[in-house]
Amino acid sequence: MSYFQIRTDLALEAREFVQGANGALHGIIVEEYVKEEGELHVTKVQITTKNGSKILGKPMGTYITLEIPGLCEAGENSEVCLFHKEIAKEISSHLKDLLPERKKNMSILIVGLGNREVTADALGPQVVEQLLVNRHIIKEYGAMGSEGEEFLLISAIVPGVMAKTGMESAEIVKGIVKETLPDVVLVIDALAARSIRRLNRTIQLSNTGIHPGSGVGNHRNAIDSKSLKIPVIAIGVPTVVDAATIVSDAMEKMYKERKEAVFLQARESMVFGELNNMYVTPKDIDITIKRVSHTLAEALNLTFSSHKDQ
Amino acid sequence: MSYFQIRTDLALEAREFVQGANGALHGIIVEEYVKEEGELHVTKVQITTKNGSKILGKPMGTYITLEIPGLCEAGENSEVCLFHKEIAKEISSHLKDLLPERKKNMSILIVGLGNREVTADALGPQVVEQLLVNRHIIKEYGAMGSEGEEFLLISAIVPGVMAKTGMESAEIVKGIVKETLPDVVLVIDALAARSIRRLNRTIQLSNTGIHPGSGVGNHRNAIDSKSLKIPVIAIGVPTVVDAATIVSDAMEKMYKERKEAVFLQARESMVFGELNNMYVTPKDIDITIKRVSHTLAEALNLTFSSHKDQ
Amino acid sequence: MSYFQIRTDLALEAREFVQGANGALHGIIVEEYVKEEGELHVTKVQITTKNGSKILGKPMGTYITLEIPGLCEAGENSEVCLFHKEIAKEISSHLKDLLPERKKNMSILIVGLGNREVTADALGPQVVEQLLVNRHIIKEYGAMGSEGEEFLLISAIVPGVMAKTGMESAEIVKGIVKETLPDVVLVIDALAARSIRRLNRTIQLSNTGIHPGSGVGNHRNAIDSKSLKIPVIAIGVPTVVDAATIVSDAMEKMYKERKEAVFLQARESMVFGELNNMYVTPKDIDITIKRVSHTLAEALNLTFSSHKDQ
Amino acid sequence: MSYFQIRTDLALEAREFVQGANGALHGIIVEEYVKEEGELHVTKVQITTKNGSKILGKPMGTYITLEIPGLCEAGENSEVCLFHKEIAKEISSHLKDLLPERKKNMSILIVGLGNREVTADALGPQVVEQLLVNRHIIKEYGAMGSEGEEFLLISAIVPGVMAKTGMESAEIVKGIVKETLPDVVLVIDALAARSIRRLNRTIQLSNTGIHPGSGVGNHRNAIDSKSLKIPVIAIGVPTVVDAATIVSDAMEKMYKERKEAVFLQARESMVFGELNNMYVTPKDIDITIKRVSHTLAEALNLTFSSHKDQ
Repeated sequence: MSYFQIRTDLALEAREFVQGANGALHGIIVEEYVKEEGELHVTKVQITTKNGSKILGKPMGTYITLEIPGLCEAGENSEVCLFHKEIAKEISSHLKDLLPERKKNMSILIVGLGNREVTADALGPQVVEQLLVNRHIIKEYGAMGSEGEEFLLISAIVPGVMAKTGMESAEIVKGIVKETLPDVVLVIDALAARSIRRLNRTIQLSNTGIHPGSGVGNHRNAIDSKSLKIPVIAIGVPTVVDAATIVSDAMEKMYKERKEAVFLQARESMVFGELNNMYVTPKDIDITIKRVSHTLAEALNLTFSSHKDQ
Repeated sequence: MSYFQIRTDLALEAREFVQGANGALHGIIVEEYVKEEGELHVTKVQITTKNGSKILGKPMGTYITLEIPGLCEAGENSEVCLFHKEIAKEISSHLKDLLPERKKNMSILIVGLGNREVTADALGPQVVEQLLVNRHIIKEYGAMGSEGEEFLLISAIVPGVMAKTGMESAEIVKGIVKETLPDVVLVIDALAARSIRRLNRTIQLSNTGIHPGSGVGNHRNAIDSKSLKIPVIAIGVPTVVDAATIVSDAMEKMYKERKEAVFLQARESMVFGELNNMYVTPKDIDITIKRVSHTLAEALNLTFSSHKDQ
Repeated sequence: MSYFQIRTDLALEAREFVQGANGALHGIIVEEYVKEEGELHVTKVQITTKNGSKILGKPMGTYITLEIPGLCEAGENSEVCLFHKEIAKEISSHLKDLLPERKKNMSILIVGLGNREVTADALGPQVVEQLLVNRHIIKEYGAMGSEGEEFLLISAIVPGVMAKTGMESAEIVKGIVKETLPDVVLVIDALAARSIRRLNRTIQLSNTGIHPGSGVGNHRNAIDSKSLKIPVIAIGVPTVVDAATIVSDAMEKMYKERKEAVFLQARESMVFGELNNMYVTPKDIDITIKRVSHTLAEALNLTFSSHKDQ
Repeated sequence: MSYFQIRTDLALEAREFVQGANGALHGIIVEEYVKEEGELHVTKVQITTKNGSKILGKPMGTYITLEIPGLCEAGENSEVCLFHKEIAKEISSHLKDLLPERKKNMSILIVGLGNREVTADALGPQVVEQLLVNRHIIKEYGAMGSEGEEFLLISAIVPGVMAKTGMESAEIVKGIVKETLPDVVLVIDALAARSIRRLNRTIQLSNTGIHPGSGVGNHRNAIDSKSLKIPVIAIGVPTVVDAATIVSDAMEKMYKERKEAVFLQARESMVFGELNNMYVTPKDIDITIKRVSHTLAEALNLTFSSHKDQ
C-alpha cells in the first residue's frame, strides 16, 4: 500500500492516517484528553497486538503524545519556553509512567541521538548537554547523605551520526550498555512528522525504543528492549517533514477541494527522486530546538533527581 | 504576475524562468561557456537597462554563475571539496573581474551574512571564520616589507540576524562602513534557489549587492552601492529552496506530463500559508556548508593576498 | 611603580592592592555590606576625583562588586546556577541604580565582547545569545498594548575580536551607535582578575565603560561615555588570571611565609617574557561560563522587560 | 621523589627532566635528528625495560616527538598551518611505523578524547570532525573497485568527558571496541606539557596508549593494548601547562640565576591547593587548535586512505 511510503515517526499520525474517521481498530487502544484549558492535548495510543502493530507500522507498546500549541513561545529569555516548568512537570509525570518501577541504585543511560551540526537534528545532543549526570560521582564516592533512600545513577552519551562515526548508533549504544550495564536506556531524538502542523508543538514518549528507517521488520539498527535486553524509553519531538510529504499533501488537499481524481492519481504516480534526503523545516528552527531542549532537559533532571520528594 | 511570487536569489534562474526557450530579451545580455570538460559551466547575465531589471526582478549589474556538479564531493578530508583549489582559483578570477581596479592600500570589508546557529544559513559566518584579516596589523605596524607594492587591508564582520540583534544587517554594516571607511564591501550569503537541482553545485557572484526580501523597489534594507556609497560585491550559494516552491514545481511537472490544465489552475490558486517561513534543505547540509565555505574562504584569501604574484 | 604591571580589571582588587590595611584614600569612597547570611558580599567603590582615578588606575565612576561564593554551584540542570533567579534579581537591582532614569522609548544596545571560540572569553557572546531583543519588532509594529506605558527597545551585538575582524571592537560599536542611535550602551565582558580566589564568584558592574589594555590615559579603544557620547554601563566577570600574576603571587606568598627579601627582589626582577599572552583558567571553565551567562542574561531580561511590574 | 609531582604527558620532557645532560640511562634508548634545515626536530624515546619505565614514569614502548617551531604559523587561510601538507606527511610516515603491519580489511577505530566545549581540550573532537570514515559504507556496499587490493575500514568516536557522560572514556571505548571489533585503536588527545616552550610546536606519537591521571601503576582508566586487547596508538599535542608548574619553574629559574637555595626549598615546600585544576594556556589557543587539528586530520586521512600509492 503506497500510503506507507509517507514517513511519520508519530504513532498519533499513523493512527489518524489509517483510521480516518471510522472508529476503533482491533489491537489499538486510544485515549485522549485535554488539560490546562485546551493548552495541552494528551493522546495515548496503545498497540496491544501484532495486528495493531502491522496496521500502524509501529512496534507494540505505549505511545503518549503531548500537543502544546504554545510550546515554543518565548519565556523569560530567548532560550526558554513560556511555560517550560509546567510542561517539564507534565512530561516528567508521563515519563514516570513509562519507566520501570524505581528501585534503589537503578542506573539509567540517556542517549542523545542526532547530528549536533544540523540544527533540526541537534535536539538529542542539546538535551544531553544540559543533563546532570552523577554515575561517576556515585561510583567514586557513593551516594553521600542518602542512607536508606533510593537514588538513581545517571549517565549520558551522544553517539554521533553514522556519516561521521562509520558506526550505527545502535552499535555504539549496545557496546556501552554491555560495558556499563545500565538498568534502563532513555533515547532522545528529533523526529519526522507527516504534517507541518505538528512541528514545534508535539512531544512523543514511548516504551518501544527507536527504529531508524522504521518499518516493523527491520530490527538491525533498532535501539529497543529486544536489542539491548533492558527497557528502552524514547522521547521524540518532530522537527522536520520529509519534502516529498509536502507535495503529496498538496495533491491531497487539491483533491479534497476540487474533487478531481487526477490529483490522487498524480500523487500515486509521482516520482520524488530529487526530493530524496530533502526535508522541510522552519526558518527559526534554532530557537525551537533550544527552547524544547531546555524543557526536555528540565523534565529529565526533575524525573531523575535523587531528592525524595520528587 | 503570479510567477514572481516564486522566490529565487539567482539571476540565472530568474532569466530561465522568464525567458523560456525563446531567445534574447532587451536589456539582458547572456554569455555561457563550458570549461574543464563539462565540469564547470559559467553563465554571465548582464542586466543593462531598467527594463531588463524589471523583467528579471533583479537590480542592474553583472551576475556570474558557476555551476559545478562535483562541487561538494569529498576531497582530502571530510571538510574539503574534491577540487577545492581549482574551484577557488576560478572563483577568484571572476571576483577580480568584478572588483574595482586594485590600488595601493585599498581596504575591503567582508561581511558574512546569515545565522550561524542554523546550518543552512551559516555559510557567511563560516567563510568569515576562515579569512586572514590584516587591517589591524597594517594600521598598527604598516605594511612591512612591501615598499612600493600595492597591498590590501582586509577586515571582516558577522553582523548576525535581526531576530538576535534587533537591528537590520544593513544598519550594522552601514555604521561600520561609516566608521572604518573601507573602499569596497564584499558580502557572502546563503541564497534561496528555485530548484533543488541548483543546491550544492552553484555559486553566484555579482556587483549589485544584497537585497533581502528582494523585489527591485525595496531598498530599505539593501546592502549595495546606493546605500553604502562604495562598490558592493556579493557572493552567494543557494542552500535552500522555499517549501512552497517545491509544491508549485510539482504541479507544473504534473501539468507537463499530463497536459491537464487543472494542475496549472491549482498552482495559481494554492494558498501556502502553512508553508510560510518553511524551507527545504538536504539532510547533509552541514557537510555542504563546511566544504563550500572552505572553498570560498580559499578563493577570498587567494584574491586578497598581498603577494604580487597572485 | 612596578605594582601596576599586575593586571586586574576589578576596582575591588585595585583598591585592596593599593590601600592595604591602612584605611581611607582621598577621592575613593568604599561601602561594603553582607546579605543573605554571608552568601552575598557587596562592595561599592566610587572614584570621585582625578587623584582617586590615578591611584587605582581606573576611570572615575562607580564600581559595584558582588561576591557570591556559591555562584557556580549546579542548579536544576547543569547549565544553571543554584540560586540563579535570586542572583539575577540582585544584579538587576544594582544595574537599575547605574542606568540613567528610565524614560519612554529608551533604547539600549547590549554589546557582548570577547571571543566565542575561546571558552574563558566567551561570556559576552553567550549572554547576548540569550537576550530577548525587540527593537526590530517595535520599529516595525510599534509597542502593541503598551499605550501610555514606558517600554524599552533592546538591540544586541557581538562584534567579535580584532584578530578575526581586523577592527577594534570600539570602532564597530561606535559605528553601530552612530547608525542606530541607542540612548545607552551596556557592555558584557570576561575580565582578568589578580587572584584565583575571585574566579567563578565575582561580578562587577560599573558606569565607566570598558578600557581594553586599560591604563587611565589610553582612550583610543575605550567603549565609554566619552567615546560614544552616551552612558555606557559595563558588567564584567573575572574568568582568567594572567599567568605572570600567579608567579608573582607565589613569590609574595613565600616572602610572607619566610620573610626573606630575596623573594621580593626576585619578583621585582623577573622577566615574564614567555608568560606573555598566557592566562590561567579552571579546567571546568565551560560549565562556569554557561551558568554565569544564564544568570546574567536572566538579570538583563528582567531589567529590560517592558512589563510594568518588574 | 617530589619531582614526579610535576606533570608532563611528554616522554621527551620526562627524559630531559630525569636525565639532565649526563648521558644514557639503562632501558631508555634515545635517538634524535634534525630535518628541513632545522625546522623539524625528531626525538625517538624507546623505553625497553621495566626499570626505564619506572625512571620515566611512562609505560614501556616507543615515543616519537616532532618539534616544529613554525607549526602554528598561518597558511593559506587562518585555519591552516603554513606547512600543513609537509607536516602531515611527516606525521603520517611516523604513524605508519607505529601501526601494525597493514593487512587487507584492517579496521581502525579513531578516538577523539577531550571536551569540545573547552578550547584547549577540543583537539581530539576537532580532529575527528574532519576524518573521512568509511566503515559503514564498506559494510554496506563492500570495497568497490578495490579487487585484490588492501583497504582499511575507518570508524571514529568522540566519547565526551566524564563530567558530562558519567562514564570513563575508557569504559565507552571498551564497549565500542567489544561491539565493533576494530583491529587497532588510535587515540587523539590534548596533553599537558611541563614547559610553555612546548606549546604550539610539539606532536607526540606513541604505541603505548593513554593513561589519564598517569603514573605507571594506575591502569583502571587506561586506553591501551592491555585493556583493549588490541594495539593502541596515541597522538598527543601539548596545549596546556599545569598552573602549579609555572610557579615551580619560576622558582627553579630564580635558583639558577641567583644560586640561593631558598628558592629550591620554597619550591619543594609550596602548597598549590588553589592552583589545583587550573591550567595555563595561550590567549589564541582557538587558532592553534584549529590549525593543528587540520594538520592531524590530514595526516590521518593520508595514512588511512585506501589508495595504493600512499
